[in-house]
Amino acid sequence: MADQLDVLAVGNAIVDVITTQSDEFLADNGIPKGSMRLISAEHAAALYARMGPGREISGGSAANTTAGVAALGGRAGFIGRVTDDQLGRVFQHDIRAVGVDYRTAPMVGAVPTAQCLIVVSPDAQRTMSTFLGSCQELDEADIDEARVAAARVTYLEGYLWDPPAPIRALKKAIAIAHAADRTVAMTLSDVFCVAGHRADFLGLMRDGSLDLVFANENEAMALFETDDIQVAIDGLAAIVPLAVVTRSAKGAVVVQGAERHSVPIQPAARVLDTTGAGDLFAAGFLAGFTSGRDLRESAVMGTIAAAEVIEHYGARPEADLQARVRAVLG
Amino acid sequence: MADQLDVLAVGNAIVDVITTQSDEFLADNGIPKGSMRLISAEHAAALYARMGPGREISGGSAANTTAGVAALGGRAGFIGRVTDDQLGRVFQHDIRAVGVDYRTAPMVGAVPTAQCLIVVSPDAQRTMSTFLGSCQELDEADIDEARVAAARVTYLEGYLWDPPAPIRALKKAIAIAHAADRTVAMTLSDVFCVAGHRADFLGLMRDGSLDLVFANENEAMALFETDDIQVAIDGLAAIVPLAVVTRSAKGAVVVQGAERHSVPIQPAARVLDTTGAGDLFAAGFLAGFTSGRDLRESAVMGTIAAAEVIEHYGARPEADLQARVRAVLG
Repeated sequence: MADQLDVLAVGNAIVDVITTQSDEFLADNGIPKGSMRLISAEHAAALYARMGPGREISGGSAANTTAGVAALGGRAGFIGRVTDDQLGRVFQHDIRAVGVDYRTAPMVGAVPTAQCLIVVSPDAQRTMSTFLGSCQELDEADIDEARVAAARVTYLEGYLWDPPAPIRALKKAIAIAHAADRTVAMTLSDVFCVAGHRADFLGLMRDGSLDLVFANENEAMALFETDDIQVAIDGLAAIVPLAVVTRSAKGAVVVQGAERHSVPIQPAARVLDTTGAGDLFAAGFLAGFTSGRDLRESAVMGTIAAAEVIEHYGARPEADLQARVRAVLG
Repeated sequence: MADQLDVLAVGNAIVDVITTQSDEFLADNGIPKGSMRLISAEHAAALYARMGPGREISGGSAANTTAGVAALGGRAGFIGRVTDDQLGRVFQHDIRAVGVDYRTAPMVGAVPTAQCLIVVSPDAQRTMSTFLGSCQELDEADIDEARVAAARVTYLEGYLWDPPAPIRALKKAIAIAHAADRTVAMTLSDVFCVAGHRADFLGLMRDGSLDLVFANENEAMALFETDDIQVAIDGLAAIVPLAVVTRSAKGAVVVQGAERHSVPIQPAARVLDTTGAGDLFAAGFLAGFTSGRDLRESAVMGTIAAAEVIEHYGARPEADLQARVRAVLG
């Protein structure tokens, strides 16, 4: 099929506003360093007013993943909602400019395009305050049956599993993908996201809705309410066919039944901004997986893509990822 | 006077959209490398659609200069017009966030905030296509008499010397500043700007409207229709009390009557994006000049600020400029 996609992602469509601030800024504003919080439009305006100058760069977790898949030579598509405003047009432009097939109709109305206010600390850690705007207005009508049915992997952003309309949209995508014998993947997104929807997420794994799950170690442990990462890994192995757990500086583990493949991180030229590291790990893994690489090589591709994105500001790749993969995997 | 400014600039209020492209991109789109062109809203939309992903960073030539003056510890103000839209709010936020006193009321209406589409080439040279939007709607009413009268230097952006309303605004600023015995400075902005307004610019110097002129060597030579830089420098010396001519890799020359002070460039850690080098040279010079430095030291401050801004994307300083000045000048 000519227009078949390797990865079709469903997620939040967000423009990031990136600023660098001292640790005192976070303390003074009562923001836990490294956290991801949802904030109101009013709160966003107040926080923005206190922030230093920013740079606006397109983001959104699953959207970043599709940009990475495309940079790695995969055919990627994205479903997510912006508003027809200046930042919505920035999001549309940027994702299409990297070759991602993006067709979701923008909203017209008073709710603006989502923004994520990102504070990067001197140690490169990012702290995110997200105003979700129109991106959580996604609904079933936005899920294009033919595109989902034709995509090898449909990749769902856990962050979207919250208001009723996006949950309906994600359920519809799962049903279409499975009816077409396709793979459904999901990222658990965030530890608070897991805490809020733990029963749902476990249910989606136990009832066979998910074939592949991405989680960092904190999310995996939150899912099983444990502080033992091995318990979490074994827990995932028991309820989902394939899982990938990222462990920051300790690399990543691929979990398939009794099999475990651990890979170390790749060295980064410098560590400037860790925003998007998890999103790009998923991109590398999915690009490898859908192009026929084995699980270990797919995970190595994840670590290569993650290493690149932390070398610069912004959560989408800027260097030649395919060249980096060739340098490591041949 | 408590609220006295060192530098009050009047200029275009622009948000830059920065992308990196090969030289072929410029050739394919018929854009002369290194040029600054004015384009329509329709042309901007068409060019943007062909560009790669961008990062939005506040710009505008004189606005960049005020951000540099503030980063160097000077008291800076800016007058220039945005629209009350998302990018207009980005501009307002960013310039205030670096400590520049900015009060111009935003326009409400269909004309959007100005954007400059900047293509950065692999050799770090920038090519600019500017859609001027609302920033050329500036008029006399925006020139606040008390602020201009209290500013040590009123700095005018040559780019604004084009439509009738901004010309009226600049003339009003000159009249107020001189009535208060203040210094009026102007940047010639661009070689095409000089070619289009050569008689006006020469007139402003000959009739005493300008006390200090900034030009790069191409602008200076265009002003005197010569290809001999010494002729241009001597020409400036004859008609303006003080001039600074920047000469790219050859550094800068300060021209005051028969006096000449040449300074070399400062080494940059890397050369990534030359956008803003001239703007930041002016910032360094003005910050030195208004804080009582001599002409040579002021020019050295210009070269320090220019060196920093070419090390990263975006035309406003990111590193600690005051520390860099201390390292060089003590």
